[in-house]
Amino acid sequence: MHVHVNAATSADGKLSSRRREQVKISGVDDFARVDEIRAASDAVLVGVGTVLADDPHLTLDESSLVSARESRGETPHPARVVADSRARTPTDARILDDVATTYVLVSEAAPADRCAALEDAGAVVVAAGEDRVSFPEAFDVLESRGVERVMVEGGGEVIFSLFEDALVDELTLYVGSMIIGGRDAPTLADGDGFVEDFPRLSLQSVERVDDGVLLSYRC
Amino acid sequence: MHVHVNAATSADGKLSSRRREQVKISGVDDFARVDEIRAASDAVLVGVGTVLADDPHLTLDESSLVSARESRGETPHPARVVADSRARTPTDARILDDVATTYVLVSEAAPADRCAALEDAGAVVVAAGEDRVSFPEAFDVLESRGVERVMVEGGGEVIFSLFEDALVDELTLYVGSMIIGGRDAPTLADGDGFVEDFPRLSLQSVERVDDGVLLSYRC
Repeated sequence: MHVHVNAATSADGKLSSRRREQVKISGVDDFARVDEIRAASDAVLVGVGTVLADDPHLTLDESSLVSARESRGETPHPARVVADSRARTPTDARILDDVATTYVLVSEAAPADRCAALEDAGAVVVAAGEDRVSFPEAFDVLESRGVERVMVEGGGEVIFSLFEDALVDELTLYVGSMIIGGRDAPTLADGDGFVEDFPRLSLQSVERVDDGVLLSYRC
Repeated sequence: MHVHVNAATSADGKLSSRRREQVKISGVDDFARVDEIRAASDAVLVGVGTVLADDPHLTLDESSLVSARESRGETPHPARVVADSRARTPTDARILDDVATTYVLVSEAAPADRCAALEDAGAVVVAAGEDRVSFPEAFDVLESRGVERVMVEGGGEVIFSLFEDALVDELTLYVGSMIIGGRDAPTLADGDGFVEDFPRLSLQSVERVDDGVLLSYRC
């Protein structure tokens, strides 16, 4: 499976403020680029923290991208995937509407009634991992359902886990020309962090977009 | 006073790992560039956290830069400045040797005996601010002593404070092609963080250096 992490951070590496409120980091050109990556993906993955903080829809904004998918015989929108070890996704979350398939990746520790409620709400619940979602296992399940290209949109906990598991193939990072600050604000890669054997990236291109810069890496 | 913040972070905005151990983020070309900014500065500022973690010397590595300063009638090395609200700088810290003048910026809350010990060790102690160093006040004192250009090398607490006080004129940020990760790892701008009125930067140039990228901003 091809895993493409895409994110926008401030110059100081933050995805949002310490209040976890969305901050407008990029502009229209970057939004259009993100929509195109979504359109080229079989699924878009976020962590439950992002669902709880932003209640995103994760569908395509641009109707021409939807038509292009349909003319290729694909679903109008990519599937949506939530990494949610404890099955905390609210049943009225926007990603659970019927516009696209939604997978909720849970661990064995997720309460059975929560998993049942999510299934009732239309989600496909995938259990993988004891206490926390095992991405290698969960991705095998997704792959068996035809998901070959996953775009990861955050947050920092999920992105760190994917780097920890060496599952990231590609990173595109929009660095906005602003400072968010905050020792408790979420960053591109949170988790426990590495203390040695830091994953090295290969910088493929550098491009000015909106008033910031887009860095593209192979991992 | 002209305040130039210079730092190297991983792609995820970290200055070092959660253990606060130095991580080699950039390479020889970036080190040479940093040395040149130091040489063009009247003083180099770090926070006491950086002194405690790394025990830096903050002098020039390249002897031709020392000679050039001397031929301009300047001191061989820029002065060193530590932002140290509680006067915790160890008296055997490398920055307290006699190679250059060292200012220790403290608050009124710093223990008098610690301040006296630092003065005995050769530091010029500058008290400014009640509980925490007041940078606007401290910078006025430095300016009265001829410090017109300050280079700030970290850490994230000091850099955030300077953005909070709108004292930063220039930011050069080397973004290394690696992931450090860690919700507790220090970032370019820590502190409490902004929740609105985020400081906007103006991206002046983008340049590939070593295997990463150097972003230069006006603030």
